[in-house]
Amino acid sequence: MAKYDHVLKQLDDFKIELPSWGFADTGTRFGKFLQSAAARSIEEKLADAGQVHRLTGACPTVAVHTLWDFPSGKSIASVVKAAKKYGVAIGAINPNVFESQQYKWGSLTNRDPDIREQAFAHIRDSIEIARQVGSEYISLWFADGINYPGQADLIERKHLMADALKSVHDTMAENMTMLVEYKPFEPAFYATDIADWGMAMLFARAAGPRARVLVDTGHHYQTTNIEQIVAWLLDENMLGGFHFNDRKYADDDLTLGSIDPYQVFRIFHEIENHRFRTGKKPALAYMVDQSHNLKPKIEAMIQTVDTAQHLYVKACLVDRKALATAQAKEDLVASENILRAAFFTDTRPILAEWRKSHRLPIDPLAAHRASGYERRAAAKRSKGGKTDHSFA
Amino acid sequence: MAKYDHVLKQLDDFKIELPSWGFADTGTRFGKFLQSAAARSIEEKLADAGQVHRLTGACPTVAVHTLWDFPSGKSIASVVKAAKKYGVAIGAINPNVFESQQYKWGSLTNRDPDIREQAFAHIRDSIEIARQVGSEYISLWFADGINYPGQADLIERKHLMADALKSVHDTMAENMTMLVEYKPFEPAFYATDIADWGMAMLFARAAGPRARVLVDTGHHYQTTNIEQIVAWLLDENMLGGFHFNDRKYADDDLTLGSIDPYQVFRIFHEIENHRFRTGKKPALAYMVDQSHNLKPKIEAMIQTVDTAQHLYVKACLVDRKALATAQAKEDLVASENILRAAFFTDTRPILAEWRKSHRLPIDPLAAHRASGYERRAAAKRSKGGKTDHSFA
Amino acid sequence: MAKYDHVLKQLDDFKIELPSWGFADTGTRFGKFLQSAAARSIEEKLADAGQVHRLTGACPTVAVHTLWDFPSGKSIASVVKAAKKYGVAIGAINPNVFESQQYKWGSLTNRDPDIREQAFAHIRDSIEIARQVGSEYISLWFADGINYPGQADLIERKHLMADALKSVHDTMAENMTMLVEYKPFEPAFYATDIADWGMAMLFARAAGPRARVLVDTGHHYQTTNIEQIVAWLLDENMLGGFHFNDRKYADDDLTLGSIDPYQVFRIFHEIENHRFRTGKKPALAYMVDQSHNLKPKIEAMIQTVDTAQHLYVKACLVDRKALATAQAKEDLVASENILRAAFFTDTRPILAEWRKSHRLPIDPLAAHRASGYERRAAAKRSKGGKTDHSFA
Amino acid sequence: MAKYDHVLKQLDDFKIELPSWGFADTGTRFGKFLQSAAARSIEEKLADAGQVHRLTGACPTVAVHTLWDFPSGKSIASVVKAAKKYGVAIGAINPNVFESQQYKWGSLTNRDPDIREQAFAHIRDSIEIARQVGSEYISLWFADGINYPGQADLIERKHLMADALKSVHDTMAENMTMLVEYKPFEPAFYATDIADWGMAMLFARAAGPRARVLVDTGHHYQTTNIEQIVAWLLDENMLGGFHFNDRKYADDDLTLGSIDPYQVFRIFHEIENHRFRTGKKPALAYMVDQSHNLKPKIEAMIQTVDTAQHLYVKACLVDRKALATAQAKEDLVASENILRAAFFTDTRPILAEWRKSHRLPIDPLAAHRASGYERRAAAKRSKGGKTDHSFA
Repeated sequence: MAKYDHVLKQLDDFKIELPSWGFADTGTRFGKFLQSAAARSIEEKLADAGQVHRLTGACPTVAVHTLWDFPSGKSIASVVKAAKKYGVAIGAINPNVFESQQYKWGSLTNRDPDIREQAFAHIRDSIEIARQVGSEYISLWFADGINYPGQADLIERKHLMADALKSVHDTMAENMTMLVEYKPFEPAFYATDIADWGMAMLFARAAGPRARVLVDTGHHYQTTNIEQIVAWLLDENMLGGFHFNDRKYADDDLTLGSIDPYQVFRIFHEIENHRFRTGKKPALAYMVDQSHNLKPKIEAMIQTVDTAQHLYVKACLVDRKALATAQAKEDLVASENILRAAFFTDTRPILAEWRKSHRLPIDPLAAHRASGYERRAAAKRSKGGKTDHSFA
Repeated sequence: MAKYDHVLKQLDDFKIELPSWGFADTGTRFGKFLQSAAARSIEEKLADAGQVHRLTGACPTVAVHTLWDFPSGKSIASVVKAAKKYGVAIGAINPNVFESQQYKWGSLTNRDPDIREQAFAHIRDSIEIARQVGSEYISLWFADGINYPGQADLIERKHLMADALKSVHDTMAENMTMLVEYKPFEPAFYATDIADWGMAMLFARAAGPRARVLVDTGHHYQTTNIEQIVAWLLDENMLGGFHFNDRKYADDDLTLGSIDPYQVFRIFHEIENHRFRTGKKPALAYMVDQSHNLKPKIEAMIQTVDTAQHLYVKACLVDRKALATAQAKEDLVASENILRAAFFTDTRPILAEWRKSHRLPIDPLAAHRASGYERRAAAKRSKGGKTDHSFA
Repeated sequence: MAKYDHVLKQLDDFKIELPSWGFADTGTRFGKFLQSAAARSIEEKLADAGQVHRLTGACPTVAVHTLWDFPSGKSIASVVKAAKKYGVAIGAINPNVFESQQYKWGSLTNRDPDIREQAFAHIRDSIEIARQVGSEYISLWFADGINYPGQADLIERKHLMADALKSVHDTMAENMTMLVEYKPFEPAFYATDIADWGMAMLFARAAGPRARVLVDTGHHYQTTNIEQIVAWLLDENMLGGFHFNDRKYADDDLTLGSIDPYQVFRIFHEIENHRFRTGKKPALAYMVDQSHNLKPKIEAMIQTVDTAQHLYVKACLVDRKALATAQAKEDLVASENILRAAFFTDTRPILAEWRKSHRLPIDPLAAHRASGYERRAAAKRSKGGKTDHSFA
Repeated sequence: MAKYDHVLKQLDDFKIELPSWGFADTGTRFGKFLQSAAARSIEEKLADAGQVHRLTGACPTVAVHTLWDFPSGKSIASVVKAAKKYGVAIGAINPNVFESQQYKWGSLTNRDPDIREQAFAHIRDSIEIARQVGSEYISLWFADGINYPGQADLIERKHLMADALKSVHDTMAENMTMLVEYKPFEPAFYATDIADWGMAMLFARAAGPRARVLVDTGHHYQTTNIEQIVAWLLDENMLGGFHFNDRKYADDDLTLGSIDPYQVFRIFHEIENHRFRTGKKPALAYMVDQSHNLKPKIEAMIQTVDTAQHLYVKACLVDRKALATAQAKEDLVASENILRAAFFTDTRPILAEWRKSHRLPIDPLAAHRASGYERRAAAKRSKGGKTDHSFA
C-alpha cells in the first residue's frame, strides 16, 4: 500500500459536511413519505450526523438552516453543546429567506424595501450565529425569481441583489466566506435571479474578496459540462465549495453518483488537475445536499460519504504524468484509457487501509446496520410529533 | 363576420374542464404561498369554477379529485347539488393513489398485493362516484416509479400495471372512458412506470376499447414534438384528452400558452388537421391542470380559458386548402406563412362576436375584477382554516 | 398612424446584416441538397443580398467569411466594388479557423505554437480586410474544444485562448469591435473552449475595452432563458450583437421565429427595456446566421427580415408605463396580458406604412417572387460548378 | 476463475458487428479532418474490420451500406470474397435513401410516388444483396421528416411510411429480420417521421412478424431512461438490436461508454434481467454506429469492443438473487450497492482469461499498436484519393 500513501494522506484532508436537514423528513410537491426514524429536532439531527461521522470519520461538521435549526427562542449555546456531545461541530450557516409568506415576490430582490430588510436582517442574524458558533461559511441560496414573462424587471432585481450581496459581504467577519449558489429553475419557473455560474460569479466578484461561488451538482441545464465550470471557477479563484447530489431529470437531489458516477469522478479529476497544475490545494467546502425521500436518512448519508470517498480516491489515482504525455501526442485513446483505468480501479482496499488506520469500521454501512441505531431512533422518535420541513 | 361563422360554431363546441384543485392553494416542494381567496372546500371550488363558467361560457364541467373532494363521509349528492347550484357539473373523476403513506413503494405496481388492492379499491370507488354523478371520464395519473437503479424490477411493475389497468377498464360502465396519463419524471426520479405516450398507449390498448391516452402538455422530455404525438394518437384513435398547462423547464404547471403560445396553436392545428382529413371531430376531453402558485386562482383560470379560445380560433383560421396547395409545391415559405398568418390574426373581434352572441362579457377578466368576487371570497375564506392539498 | 411614429422611427434604425454564406448551398453532416439558384461566388452572394436589401430596405450590410469570400488571390477592392454595385456594404468580417486540416486539435488553443500562429495570422489578415473595407466588426467563433474526457487540459486551453484574444483585441484599429461568440457543443462533443455566455464574457473582459459578447440565439442549452442573458449582458455593457436563428433541438439554424416567435419577441422586449431604463440605445450588430438547407435562400432571408421587423415592432409596442404600474402591484395577469397584447397586435399596417414611406414593396416576398430573380439566377448558376461551403 | 465460467460462456456469445463506414473518414457539418489510414474502399474497410476481429475475437460480421459499399458495378461476389479473405462475414445491410438529391423532400414518405418507388427499389436491391451475401438483417434508418411547421402533413407521411414498411417486410425472405430505427431529430429539425420508440414499434408491429425496433443509444431526448425502453421492447418481443455509441449533447456518435458508462451497464443489466426472468436469451444484433472524427478508426473500434465486453461482463456479474431479495425488502441502499459492486468489479482478469482461452491478445489495443497495421495502411492509403462519405 506504500504506493498509495499520498492518496491516504489526501483522504485525511477530504472532509464532507452533512446537512442537518438531510436527517429530517423530506418529499416532493406531491407529498412526503414519513420515516419513523427521521430526526425531529436539531439535537436529533446532530445525533444522526454524529453517527455518520463516528462510522466514516469524514464528516466532522454539520451544515445548519437558520430558520429550522435556530428557531427564535432556541439558544445557540445549546446547539453548540449538542454538537459537541455528538462529536461534530457546526459548519455552514444557511439562511432561509424563501419559505415565509412575505417572500412570495422575492427576498433580497423584493420590490418592497421592508421585506428586503427583513431578509437582510435574517441573513445578518445568520452571520451572528456563525460568529458565535465559530463557523466560517455563510451559504446563500435564493429562491428569488419570477414565474411569468413580464412579472418583473429582471435588471431591477439584478441591481437589488447586487447591492444586498455587497452588504451581506461587508457584514461578515474577516475570517468568513460567503458562498453564492446558483440554480436555473424551481421554484421560479420563468427566470431565476441567480440562474447560472456566470451570474453567481458576477455577483460574488462585485460583493467583495470573501465571496465565492457554490456549485450544486444538480443545478445545471441538461448536458452542461459541470467539470468545465468547476475548472474555470478554480482557475478564476472563485470556487468556494459544493452541494453534492445527483440527478437524472431536474433538481432531483438523489444520492451522489447514483446516476452518473463518472461525472462525479471527472469533477474530482478537475480539482486534482488544478492542484497538479498550481501545486496548491484549493480551500473547498464539500457539502451534501440531498433529499432522501425514500432511503433511510442515515444509511443514505453513509452511502454518500462512501461513494464520495471512492470517487475522490479514483480521481487521485489518475496518472497525471502519463496523461500529460498522451495528451502531448494527441493520443485520445490512451488519454481516455488513463482516466478509465483510474475510474475502474478497485478502490476498496485503499479505503479499507485508510479506515483501518483510523480505527474505523471497514464497512460503515454494515456497522451502522449492526448498531441498532436506526431501530432505537425509530422507536423513540415515532412517539412524538414530527418536524415538517422543506429543504433546499 | 359571416366568414367566421364556422369558427363561431366550433367555439360553441370548444369546452374546457376546470380542475377543482386549481382553486385551492398550491406550491412547490419549497412551500406554499397562501392566498386568502383560495378555496377550502369542494363547495368553494365549485363556486369559483362557476364564476369562471359564468364569465366565459366555456367551462360547464369541473374535474374532481376523489381523495380531496369526496373524503369519506362526504355525501356525493351534496357535491352534485353544490355543482348545480353554481351552474356547473362534475366532470372527470381523478383517483388519488399517490399521497397516502402506504403508496411509498407504488400503488398499482406495489409489490404488496394488499396495497395494490387498496389502490384498486380507491379507483373502484372513484368509478362508482363517476356513475353516481354521471361522469364519463375516469382520469388516471400514477406517481408509481422508482428513484434509483436497482430499486425494483421495471418489468414486474409493467406487468402489474397492465393487469390492474385491465381490471379498472372492465370495472367501468359501458359509457365511461378511462384516460391513461403519462409523465416522464417527478415524483419518481429514476424510472416512472408510465413514462411516455408509447407506454401509455400500450397500456391503454391492452386494457380495452374504452381506454385512451391523456396528454398533459407539460409531461414531455424537452424538445419533444408534442403536436406530432397528438396527431399520431388521433390517427391511432387513441387520444382521449388533454391536461393543459405550459412550462419552460420541467413540469412547471404554468398557464397555458404563457411560455410558448405557438406550440399550443400547433397542437390545435393538428387536431383541426385531423378533422379536415377525416371529416370527423374527435371526442376529446380538454382539461386544465395548472398550478397557480402566485397568480390569483380565478383570474388565472379566466386567462387560461381566454388564451385557449384565442389559440383554438387561430388554429381554426388556418387556410387548409391553401396550405395543401403550398405543400404540394413544396413551398415551405408559403406553407409556414399560412400558419403564421392565422397565428397572428387579431382574434379579439371573433371572440367578442362569440361572447356577445352568448351574452357573455367581452372581457371576462375585467368583468371578474369588477364583480368584487375575489374580495368577497378573501374576506370570507381568510377567516377559517385552509385546505392544504398538493396537486397533480 | 401618428401614434406609431416612434415605432416607425425605430424601424428606421433597425438594420439586419445578412451573411454571405446564407446564399450558398448548405447542409447537414448527412449531405447537402443543392439548389440551382444558390450563389457560387462572393459576387453572387452580394447580388443576392442586394436583392434582399432592395426589397426590404433593412439590410445595408453583408457579413463575410474571410476564407470563403476572400480566398487568396481575391482582390479586396473587387469585393468592395461588387458590394457597391449591388447596393450593399461589407459588414462583419468572420475569420474561419475551423475548416482546414491543421485545426484538427484546435486553432488558438492548439498546443502547437505554429498552428496557433497560423490561426492568429488568419485573424490578423481578417482585421486588415476589415480596415480596408471599412468594417467595424471582427466576429469570432471558434470550433475549438475536445471530444473526450482526458483529451486535453481544459485550463491550458483557457489560458491560450485568453492570451490570443488579448492579442487579437490589441491588433484591431481603435474604431473596431471584436465580437466573441459562445456555443456549448458541435463540432466539439465533450467540452467547448467558449461554451457559454459566462466564458465569453470573461474572455471579452480580459481582452480589452473593445471586445463584446455575441449571442447566437441557437447556442444555448435547452431551457436557458436567453432573454435574461441578453438583459444581463446589456446591463454589464458587454453585449455586442446577435446571430439570429431559431431551433427546436440543437443548433438547428432554422429561420428566426419559426419555432418560438414569442421568445424572439421577449429578447427584443429586454432590449427595449434597457433603452427604457437607461434612455440609451445600445449599439448592437443584428446579424442573421441561418442554414436554409431546404428553403430557397433569398426567400428565406426575406422571410427572416420580415419576421424580425414584425417581432421587433411588437416589442416596441409594449406599453412600458402600464407594465411598470402592473408590476408595482404584483399584478401578474395584467403584466403578462400587456406583453401578449403587444405580441398579438396586427403589425402589418405598421410595416406597410413604414415600407410605403420608404418606397419599398408592401410585401417583399411577393415582390421577389414576381421579379423573376430566382429563375434567372437558377438558369445562370446551374450551368457552372457550385461552391461547396460549410457554415457556422 | 471457475466461478466466472458462466460469464466466460456468455462472452462467447457476445458478438458485436462493426460498421464498414466506421473505418472511413467522417466529420461534422463543419468539415472533416482526414486520416491518412482511413479506408477508401469496401475492401479496405473489410481489412480493417478483420484486424479488429483478429485481435478481439468478438466481431465476426461487418454491417455495410448499400450505396457506399455496393455502388452500381460493384460485384457482390467480390465483396463476399474480400470479407472471407479478411476473416469476417457481411452482416446487416443498410440501405441509404437520404443522401441523393431526389430525397430532399423525403424517401418513403415523399409525396412524389416516383421517388417513393426509387427509394423502395433501393431497399429491394438491398434485400437482394442480403439474400446473396446471406445476411439476416436489413437495417432501416430514414432521414425523412420536415424542418418547419406546416411543411407537410405529418399523418399523410405516417400512412406512406406504414404502407412502405409493410411492403419492405413482405419483400424479405423468411429468414430475414427488418430493423426499424428511430431518431428524434437531425437532419430533420421540426418533425421526424420515426421519432421515438413508440412510433418505431407501431410501424414494426404493423409491418409484420419479422420487424423489430433498433435502438441507437444516441437517438433519444435528453434524460430519457433508455434502459427502461430496452426492457419494455424486450418484454413486448419487439427489440431487434442496437446501434452502440455514446453522446453528451445530441447525436454525437462518440465511443460507447465514453461519457456515461454506468448507463451502458444498466442497459446490459436490463437485457440480463430479461434472460433471468424468462430463461431465454433474446436474439439481438449488437452493432456499432459511431463517428470517430478525431480518433484513429481501428483503435477506436478496438476500444469500443473492449469497453462493451467489460460493461457486459459487469452486467453479467450482478448478483440477481441477492438483488431480488433486497428489492423484496425495499432495501434501496442494498439494491443499489449490488449494482454498483458489479459495475466497479475489476473485470480485467475475466477478460484476460477469456482472451487467453481464445488465443487472443490480452491487450488488443497494444497488440494493434505493436502490429504496425496503422502505419502500413496510412502509407498505402495516403497515396490515392479518399472516399468522402457521410454516415448515419
